[in-house]
Amino acid sequence: MDIPNEKFDLIIIGSGPAGYLSAILAARKGVSTAIIEKSDLGGTCLNRGCIPTKTLLHEALHWNHIADSGLMRDREGAASYFKYAMGRKNAAVNQVVSGVRRILNRDHITVVPGEASFINPRTISIKRGGEIVKRLESDRILIASGAVPLELDLLKKDGQWVIESDEALNLTDLPTSIAVVGGGRRGVEFSTFFNTFGVRVTLIERESRILPKMDREISVRYKGLLSKKGVKIFTDAEVMAADLPEKKEIVTLKIAQKGKEEKLEFQKILIVGDRRGNTDGLNIEKASLTLENGFLSVDSQMKTRSPGIYAAGDIVGKSFFAHKAFLEAKIAVRNILGEESRIDYQFAPICLYSYPEAASVGLTEEEAKEKWGEIKIGKFPFVGCGRAVAASEQEGMVKIITEAKYGEVIGVHILGPSATELIHLGAMAMKHEIGVEDIREMVFAHPSFSEAFYEAALDGNDEAVHIMKG
Amino acid sequence: MDIPNEKFDLIIIGSGPAGYLSAILAARKGVSTAIIEKSDLGGTCLNRGCIPTKTLLHEALHWNHIADSGLMRDREGAASYFKYAMGRKNAAVNQVVSGVRRILNRDHITVVPGEASFINPRTISIKRGGEIVKRLESDRILIASGAVPLELDLLKKDGQWVIESDEALNLTDLPTSIAVVGGGRRGVEFSTFFNTFGVRVTLIERESRILPKMDREISVRYKGLLSKKGVKIFTDAEVMAADLPEKKEIVTLKIAQKGKEEKLEFQKILIVGDRRGNTDGLNIEKASLTLENGFLSVDSQMKTRSPGIYAAGDIVGKSFFAHKAFLEAKIAVRNILGEESRIDYQFAPICLYSYPEAASVGLTEEEAKEKWGEIKIGKFPFVGCGRAVAASEQEGMVKIITEAKYGEVIGVHILGPSATELIHLGAMAMKHEIGVEDIREMVFAHPSFSEAFYEAALDGNDEAVHIMKG
Repeated sequence: MDIPNEKFDLIIIGSGPAGYLSAILAARKGVSTAIIEKSDLGGTCLNRGCIPTKTLLHEALHWNHIADSGLMRDREGAASYFKYAMGRKNAAVNQVVSGVRRILNRDHITVVPGEASFINPRTISIKRGGEIVKRLESDRILIASGAVPLELDLLKKDGQWVIESDEALNLTDLPTSIAVVGGGRRGVEFSTFFNTFGVRVTLIERESRILPKMDREISVRYKGLLSKKGVKIFTDAEVMAADLPEKKEIVTLKIAQKGKEEKLEFQKILIVGDRRGNTDGLNIEKASLTLENGFLSVDSQMKTRSPGIYAAGDIVGKSFFAHKAFLEAKIAVRNILGEESRIDYQFAPICLYSYPEAASVGLTEEEAKEKWGEIKIGKFPFVGCGRAVAASEQEGMVKIITEAKYGEVIGVHILGPSATELIHLGAMAMKHEIGVEDIREMVFAHPSFSEAFYEAALDGNDEAVHIMKG
Repeated sequence: MDIPNEKFDLIIIGSGPAGYLSAILAARKGVSTAIIEKSDLGGTCLNRGCIPTKTLLHEALHWNHIADSGLMRDREGAASYFKYAMGRKNAAVNQVVSGVRRILNRDHITVVPGEASFINPRTISIKRGGEIVKRLESDRILIASGAVPLELDLLKKDGQWVIESDEALNLTDLPTSIAVVGGGRRGVEFSTFFNTFGVRVTLIERESRILPKMDREISVRYKGLLSKKGVKIFTDAEVMAADLPEKKEIVTLKIAQKGKEEKLEFQKILIVGDRRGNTDGLNIEKASLTLENGFLSVDSQMKTRSPGIYAAGDIVGKSFFAHKAFLEAKIAVRNILGEESRIDYQFAPICLYSYPEAASVGLTEEEAKEKWGEIKIGKFPFVGCGRAVAASEQEGMVKIITEAKYGEVIGVHILGPSATELIHLGAMAMKHEIGVEDIREMVFAHPSFSEAFYEAALDGNDEAVHIMKG
């Protein structure tokens, strides 16, 4: 082949949050940058993750609230609103994707559509329609190719009966029933969404609690809330068999829970379980790399084991938040530019976007006890928060964990309205060592959801005001 | 009269936020406390202010969003939802009022219903049904009797055609048209609310801009937003005459704007203008006090000119936020308890609860330039914020003002979704000297409205990511 190598200072594989942010940060420092994307610009987050799911959840939240009035709770209304929400979702995706496209363009980043494949640790071929159309070369490569669902042996996606989030985000009609396999964040978000529109939802989680990565109290309370809404939840449960429909349009799942087996019928099965690093077609072994436990391993500077090759975002595993990807991208680029910079995940929030929302930063109660011995917990329920009453969103609480000696904040866990926003007060306090005493001296707007954060800080000293205790 | 004086360590007049918080804080320190209330427990905030208006605005926000789908925009739907919202408002008020009642009870505070009237600076009589039923005596008295609307010569409230917020909050049917006289926060909130439910709204403001106490940029943009929604706005305008209806159910207002006069017809006139300290019936002169410019004057320890007598909340004027009242109550009680404590209003947020929301803390741009000379402004529009796109709430921006030398935050102004929550990030940063550089090193959840705050901090260094500039 006589395709010449195009040379760049930095080549990035994948245009999701880790990829596009790296490109922008590097390009702004004068680094000539190419970004390769084989599918949709913006990756999972913009096209099939954060943005579409949050748009649907925002729509569902409004619908849920209005439907609670009893003035319009009917199946037909729900079905039309569902379609409207899907349209809004498409519009939101288009808007953010074209925004990122314009920004990449403004920052003079070369966007290369096609499939990347390593030829050697410095050279990447680009295929389109099966043909190699380009070869890119660089001493600095960042892999940000994301993650894909791990296939289950028993439940293979067929796009019709067994679907993944991609298909769920593109349903044209509401199913009457759905089994959501996987009770992590995404499983809970989809369960909430479908439940709101009147779909009979069953949530199946392998571990002993849904939201296993969140604070135990939030996870336990969330199970109660979902159950109250009519979501059937199986924990410690596994799918043992699936009968796909031949004639009748029903999938039968055999679910095992603590030795007991149950057969249940669904119109759709949605799999939102584990993921693995997406290296499909990348030929990473040509770059002297292999996956470890399904992901690329990096050090605290986001360097892989192959010199000159960095990785960031879902491909490195750990968790699958876009802001974790942003953080990794920032650190990777700093190191690519020669500034020594090490990653610190401890102030990165964990967020759940269903309603009520939930969010955490720092240590859980169990971790805090283990690490600090003596801790203090300040807690305030949203039922005592004027704005929560006004908004009719009274479920949940703010919990602030401090070490006992200086009142330093070491963990914040929020279940309730605006949790994914309020969590930043916790993150700011932790990152910049603002103790509970300092929080108690702030003035919080009344009414605001943030007052619950204030009252939780007061409660650490038994000084919360709008609460009945003991 | 042989009514014996009942003695307390502290007597509080008025049970609104300043009153009830003072009572709770003092009682918890072992101070025997009586709180006198002539009307509804919880005062304006709980019964006729914050809580009812925010409940209605939350309902209207949801309705507005759903109505935007075009699936149910009809007058009948709006009228039923309006009635539902009014019911929700009553429920919210009942809940928070009974919450405060229980807390006062738990803290062993003596609640005295009736009208307070000073006999001398240490003694207060309590009247019920025109009869003196009690006399209370204390060396420490806190006046927290709130504020009432200032009557206009030309527009006297009649409860039917000319109403104030009390009546507006208790309307049983939607008017077809309403003139809102007063373009401050409350005027804008009511205008938004009625506009959402299809009422033809005209907003009349005496000063040259609506929201005259907020950041100029927010005020200018808000006018544009309201106009776009169909609210007719007169600034620099005054009501010159009002013809109340005799037969036809229409009020005619003559409005003068910059020398031009216009006659307009409305079904209702809502006055939400200036207020004055409420000393009606209090006989404050018996306590050696007089109103100054309509309010009680206090020093930085919340002491009035009469020894032993303190004041807090709306009665001392300045602004009419419940959280300002809370702050004053806290400082007053500290001083009553003998701790020297001085008030500092500079970190108290200013909030607007219509949609988009708006909030400010610290200096405005103009004030900042005047005080600091060289300043930097970081600004980020919500249109570049993924969550704002998802939520369909893209209007507005975050503006962070810093002094140029150290990047210290000296003012934050937010127009847009969750402004009244995000403002606390600004308040925390200002209060605890977290500079923009520090904010730039935080990890913000994606997607979140809070990211706009982060990007505004980045923008101060021209480093914002999700934005097209220049």
